[in-house]
Amino acid sequence: MTSGLPFDDFRNLLANLPGPDEAAVAAVRERDAQLTKPAGALGRLENLAEWLAAWSGRPPAVTRPLVAVFAGNHGVTGQGVTPFPPSVTAQMVENFAAGGAAINQICIANDLGLKVFDLALDYPTADITQEAAMDEKTCAATMAFGMEAIAGGTDLLCIGEMGIGNTTIAAAICHALYGGEAADWVGPGTGSAGDVLTRKIDAVAGAVARHKPHLKDPLEVLRRLGGREIAAMAGAILAARMERIPVIIDGYVSTAAAAVLHTANPSALDHCIVGHVSAEPAHAAALQKIGKEPILSLGMRLGEGTGAALAAGIVKAAALCHSGMATFEQAGVSEKDG
Amino acid sequence: MTSGLPFDDFRNLLANLPGPDEAAVAAVRERDAQLTKPAGALGRLENLAEWLAAWSGRPPAVTRPLVAVFAGNHGVTGQGVTPFPPSVTAQMVENFAAGGAAINQICIANDLGLKVFDLALDYPTADITQEAAMDEKTCAATMAFGMEAIAGGTDLLCIGEMGIGNTTIAAAICHALYGGEAADWVGPGTGSAGDVLTRKIDAVAGAVARHKPHLKDPLEVLRRLGGREIAAMAGAILAARMERIPVIIDGYVSTAAAAVLHTANPSALDHCIVGHVSAEPAHAAALQKIGKEPILSLGMRLGEGTGAALAAGIVKAAALCHSGMATFEQAGVSEKDG
Repeated sequence: MTSGLPFDDFRNLLANLPGPDEAAVAAVRERDAQLTKPAGALGRLENLAEWLAAWSGRPPAVTRPLVAVFAGNHGVTGQGVTPFPPSVTAQMVENFAAGGAAINQICIANDLGLKVFDLALDYPTADITQEAAMDEKTCAATMAFGMEAIAGGTDLLCIGEMGIGNTTIAAAICHALYGGEAADWVGPGTGSAGDVLTRKIDAVAGAVARHKPHLKDPLEVLRRLGGREIAAMAGAILAARMERIPVIIDGYVSTAAAAVLHTANPSALDHCIVGHVSAEPAHAAALQKIGKEPILSLGMRLGEGTGAALAAGIVKAAALCHSGMATFEQAGVSEKDG
Repeated sequence: MTSGLPFDDFRNLLANLPGPDEAAVAAVRERDAQLTKPAGALGRLENLAEWLAAWSGRPPAVTRPLVAVFAGNHGVTGQGVTPFPPSVTAQMVENFAAGGAAINQICIANDLGLKVFDLALDYPTADITQEAAMDEKTCAATMAFGMEAIAGGTDLLCIGEMGIGNTTIAAAICHALYGGEAADWVGPGTGSAGDVLTRKIDAVAGAVARHKPHLKDPLEVLRRLGGREIAAMAGAILAARMERIPVIIDGYVSTAAAAVLHTANPSALDHCIVGHVSAEPAHAAALQKIGKEPILSLGMRLGEGTGAALAAGIVKAAALCHSGMATFEQAGVSEKDG
């Protein structure tokens, strides 16, 4: 870190993002045209192979896929925005460690590595309806911590999260970045309904109103409204870009983290795809804002990176189709007449 | 086989299909309610776990998944309905055997078994614009052959096909079963365009007009308009039902085979899901007719069972989530307040 304000390094990174490897994409297209299938017949799998090449700078391959799950706690739960107690965040982190959660099973099914990062769970961020969630130094340090997610090496990073109250946080971020009414961005999350849902909408509206004068700057949105896991996910997505690692975003909460970067630089998510559109009603709207078409639409709304991890299975298959298929010449298969 | 007409046994099977195992479904629902996730948060994965239990009669598990690919040739290719020569069917069967096709890679990615059944490729069925594709005895024997697909044992059967000209066949079957105009059911398939596409539409219209007086009976539709791989897939789907094996249908051609059974008995596909909706324009319409929501929508149009095999990865993950997740009690995770 250089001297100056804590966000300076991130502002600098966001202004100087590396672009795609066009030569790697051209090589994929050239090989794809020779594979034993009609041109275009693998549909989105072909796009995924190109995307892997563009952002890894190598022929499409997924050999060390990793799911990184970030967990945080949120002072806004004091506003009664969720029916689950905040203690569930730490309990679920233990469940991840013990292999008992949904994400563990999907990682087994798709042969993905899993790392869980718990972010000072005993120290929830401040209640965003009252004050800023974090100071700039804490937010920047948490982003930097998130950047460590890829330190052990991976060639496909799936981003996930766990945090009681964090769909309230995601809604506040999206409301701040994209406007509209608070209610447009609030959904049931992990089971908010009736009065709880009303309080959730009020909390989002109140938080955005309170911080309104400072929300033109997306990194200010992140530190004032975001949680630690959101900041860490933003850091992880940025670090992956710098290290040429393609990223799969998961549901509404990880999309909110991505949306902060996208607002700072519209090309910041070019190395990312979105694994699924969740059942959380505002997720589809947020995906439109960041310009991403999800791979899957299965009505899931669990977080933990589960949608991203399921989509990783599709991405692995896409890479293998590209690398493993025979060419027309190799297989002695005739091409089109004439 | 009893004496009588060759189709008699199939008519009898279709009139006496086993139903779902309601006790197995109830057991899934009871366990699902205790798993460490909000109720319903795994969306369609939860439905898939119930479906596996309903049609296997056991707790959800996928330990021996199998992709069965049926290959056939079609006299209708003499009408100039496709730009590929019929010799490609046998060449692709060799490519499957050598491991060079897309389906081989997806089977590796999702750890699925693969069996390829080539159906008298040197003896294409008759040109359906001129006569019936098969006589009843041949059609019934081919259905019976298709039933052997599960003989080696499997607990999840993915159905796929390969056959130059067989989207013309699928279109003729759908047009016969569902009416409308021939053009409603015809698409580019493996690259038909311009004059080739016009001839394809004409062939479908001509075939259905020629056999019109006999198309009230879906098994007559199958033998008059269907190819060998279509008949074999219909047999495989039926055999799976009898042996309590859940089935994943693939694209437009395998859906046409399924549609024959569905017309004969609207509950005949209750043990089936559809892996994907393909880019072949009429596939979505055919899925509406059989009342199925696809798992994936990735713009694929290759056949070979590729869409079903990709979806099998999702089904495996669904089974593992159900069987492998911890309960709230096991994990010490708090449930909702109050």
